[in-house]
Amino acid sequence: MEENPNKTKSFVIAGKSFRSRLLVGTGKFGSYLQMAQALEASGSQIVTVSLRRVEIGENKRQEDILSYIDTKKYLLVINTSGAMNAEEAVRIAKIAAHGGLPKWIKLEIHPDPRYLLPDPIETLKATQMLVKEDFIVLPYINADPVLAKRLEEEGAAAVMPLGSPIGSMRGLETKAQIEIIIEQATVPVIVDAGIGKPSHAALAMEMGADGVLINTAIAIANDPCQMARAFKMAVEAGRMAYESGTDEVSKFAVATSPLESFF
Amino acid sequence: MEENPNKTKSFVIAGKSFRSRLLVGTGKFGSYLQMAQALEASGSQIVTVSLRRVEIGENKRQEDILSYIDTKKYLLVINTSGAMNAEEAVRIAKIAAHGGLPKWIKLEIHPDPRYLLPDPIETLKATQMLVKEDFIVLPYINADPVLAKRLEEEGAAAVMPLGSPIGSMRGLETKAQIEIIIEQATVPVIVDAGIGKPSHAALAMEMGADGVLINTAIAIANDPCQMARAFKMAVEAGRMAYESGTDEVSKFAVATSPLESFF
Amino acid sequence: MEENPNKTKSFVIAGKSFRSRLLVGTGKFGSYLQMAQALEASGSQIVTVSLRRVEIGENKRQEDILSYIDTKKYLLVINTSGAMNAEEAVRIAKIAAHGGLPKWIKLEIHPDPRYLLPDPIETLKATQMLVKEDFIVLPYINADPVLAKRLEEEGAAAVMPLGSPIGSMRGLETKAQIEIIIEQATVPVIVDAGIGKPSHAALAMEMGADGVLINTAIAIANDPCQMARAFKMAVEAGRMAYESGTDEVSKFAVATSPLESFF
Amino acid sequence: MEENPNKTKSFVIAGKSFRSRLLVGTGKFGSYLQMAQALEASGSQIVTVSLRRVEIGENKRQEDILSYIDTKKYLLVINTSGAMNAEEAVRIAKIAAHGGLPKWIKLEIHPDPRYLLPDPIETLKATQMLVKEDFIVLPYINADPVLAKRLEEEGAAAVMPLGSPIGSMRGLETKAQIEIIIEQATVPVIVDAGIGKPSHAALAMEMGADGVLINTAIAIANDPCQMARAFKMAVEAGRMAYESGTDEVSKFAVATSPLESFF
Repeated sequence: MEENPNKTKSFVIAGKSFRSRLLVGTGKFGSYLQMAQALEASGSQIVTVSLRRVEIGENKRQEDILSYIDTKKYLLVINTSGAMNAEEAVRIAKIAAHGGLPKWIKLEIHPDPRYLLPDPIETLKATQMLVKEDFIVLPYINADPVLAKRLEEEGAAAVMPLGSPIGSMRGLETKAQIEIIIEQATVPVIVDAGIGKPSHAALAMEMGADGVLINTAIAIANDPCQMARAFKMAVEAGRMAYESGTDEVSKFAVATSPLESFF
Repeated sequence: MEENPNKTKSFVIAGKSFRSRLLVGTGKFGSYLQMAQALEASGSQIVTVSLRRVEIGENKRQEDILSYIDTKKYLLVINTSGAMNAEEAVRIAKIAAHGGLPKWIKLEIHPDPRYLLPDPIETLKATQMLVKEDFIVLPYINADPVLAKRLEEEGAAAVMPLGSPIGSMRGLETKAQIEIIIEQATVPVIVDAGIGKPSHAALAMEMGADGVLINTAIAIANDPCQMARAFKMAVEAGRMAYESGTDEVSKFAVATSPLESFF
Repeated sequence: MEENPNKTKSFVIAGKSFRSRLLVGTGKFGSYLQMAQALEASGSQIVTVSLRRVEIGENKRQEDILSYIDTKKYLLVINTSGAMNAEEAVRIAKIAAHGGLPKWIKLEIHPDPRYLLPDPIETLKATQMLVKEDFIVLPYINADPVLAKRLEEEGAAAVMPLGSPIGSMRGLETKAQIEIIIEQATVPVIVDAGIGKPSHAALAMEMGADGVLINTAIAIANDPCQMARAFKMAVEAGRMAYESGTDEVSKFAVATSPLESFF
Repeated sequence: MEENPNKTKSFVIAGKSFRSRLLVGTGKFGSYLQMAQALEASGSQIVTVSLRRVEIGENKRQEDILSYIDTKKYLLVINTSGAMNAEEAVRIAKIAAHGGLPKWIKLEIHPDPRYLLPDPIETLKATQMLVKEDFIVLPYINADPVLAKRLEEEGAAAVMPLGSPIGSMRGLETKAQIEIIIEQATVPVIVDAGIGKPSHAALAMEMGADGVLINTAIAIANDPCQMARAFKMAVEAGRMAYESGTDEVSKFAVATSPLESFF
């Protein structure tokens, strides 16, 4: 495998540096308090929230999700989940910006009700529109290397290919395509959707992904805080392995103890 | 899947408790000093050494491997690598015990020069012989559930099925058989051989393995200390995930954000 | 798994029925004669040819590829390989039609020189343009279920998701996504690219694919005719297995011989 | 990969040649008639029967399984399924021989009631005993390359490693170990147990297995005759692919159509 220049790069999206390569989503938790504790345990610095969960302007209730997310500690990224096409996604982004939220948008356009898979055409279109309006756009995509390249060319700040359907926890079913995306990308590659176990997250990082986004696997664990810590460690472990090298795989055994006659 | 009573059990072999579930082998390091530093970084409490590397009695040179392993910190387990049959393995164990080394033996009998795969017949025989002589026996085996059960019945203190050939770093190629071994074992199951990446170690722990043994992947890394730390974290992450639950895998997507119409 | 209505459907594309579900490409053969013999051995009824190999009009040389393909026996489908965008692909299709070739087009638009992966945006655009001009369009795509659905809605006569990069012979690396495409499609799904072995082809058919397209694996075999026959049988075997049922997979063993005490 | 001398060898067990490399088991069919028809459709020349299904001597009922198996057409191989140890297996073999049945024995010793996995120790012992008594012994084993080699040395006429648990139809979960067995064996390697689909059978043959044994997948199909035909074709396809070569797998795409500029 060729040397990947990302190998020693720190994790920078749109000029902003992050120590943690673990992004966390905020859906499905039992309570906001539990969510807040799991975020803390995860060590994450980037948190995604669906705009539909956010109270904006005058409708603000007391028990708002945002009051549980310390925006001094976490970069808040609004996701457009629920959007069926580019127009809806752009509209969500604008409502968020108008409401004073950051202009970082995780773009999710999934017309497919069963697997929530993203629409490549609408995602490209929305990326073009949002980049023009100075949003920082992180599109959620199928593991399609050509689409990833085109989004990068249109100004996406990162690409977020799926490992398997959202919430399915089936891991990196699209591994072969993600490897090509990583090889070709010049923006960060963040594996999103489908990561169900720390071993999946470690694998993504060992392959050279720049980050991973986890939601369901943490939110529905019996102990979300412990699971958040497990993912934190797995992401660090995978990244350290990527940086400290050794990809060679041998068909044959290679003795760890010398085999010369002993007796 | 049925509840595994191991789920909350601490890691106990032959009545002795260990905090760390990562065992480390000592072959292939660039130097004894590097080895010692990697052991330290790994957090391991159990270290395996081939008797052929150990200076016993009067031949003791100054630069002995044992002078780099603090036996107050690490349990020293002698491996019989190089043994072609039960008799040779038993002879190695006895030389070790006679030389004042602990009676913990990692039994390796591999007549196969290419893949170093273990011999099931000789391994069972040697286990019977060594148990009778009060050794604590940890046999390295193919991922054979029936053999694992028989070794357990003969008094093996743990079973150590291989993931793939020694030193090959190909991961858990025998995953399906190891799952059955874990399901059926009443002694600890330690996955040995072939683990090449932290993600492999995390996967083994998520499956419910009690521990893993790593050697090559740490010893030949560009930075063995960092790789040792990576494995330490991956093993802990995998175990935490195992303990904090959630095995359900869904074919369909399960939205992390509510899908009711937003606009 | 739900009952798939395709299960008993015969293989029909754009109203035309085919007995054979094996499509064969014509690149990379050692000679046109060898190609012709392999086509014969494959039993295929649909053959794809790159327009760049075809002599049209006055430049016609004696040794034309088309003189080796009996168009009474095979439906000739022109592919647009080499096209970098929709306009180029449409132009190739029109040259072919103008030259008297059938209006069946295998749409290939791959700007990526290394993996030859298809461009989703340009492919959708070209499909729209060609359908308007009454071409029968079979687009080659990444294994993207949402794109497949959109192409179908735009009038594609089939969808042709890739298993792995063209010519790589790595098999169904995109299996999980292809399963979703098959589940959702109302036009035939033909797995294209990457199928390297008869077992890959059989697997695609067992999953419910309507057909497979093979080129490299036959063309570069030591014995292309024998390999063509092997694929013919594997495709039939996979389809028969799909039709004769039984998907259940058990975790446990199920004895084939009764286990009541024998003695 | 090194050249395997088996590549052009015909299928010979204990000096007896067979055209078909598909062995079929006789359990679980809906009726003896259905079984007989499926055997016919499979083209098999070797059929295994559990002795417990056979009526011997005076207890012979009218409706005997053997009256449905034409021993002029099929070599009858008795299996010892139900045996818990070597003694029971040898006893079954002797009862069969005494009853006038062929001395070909498929040795199955599985004390494990849940997965029916074979016992390596008892299987070796029974092989030694039966070879001494001039039986032709085909032992069913875990995918253990060292055990396979030892059985071969003791005179086993073939080795029959499992792909996955009997009746589970999960395919070649032990693929990596079976590859080593095939590489090292000098007797035929017949993959037994777990093959659930024609694609699994084709894969085993492409890997260089000498034969496969199928039972459940045919017997419980909605249409056992059609499934038997499917397996027949898949086995032939896999073998033909093995013989006609090309193992090379490329990471990159290799165009099947020339890429020089077209316009």
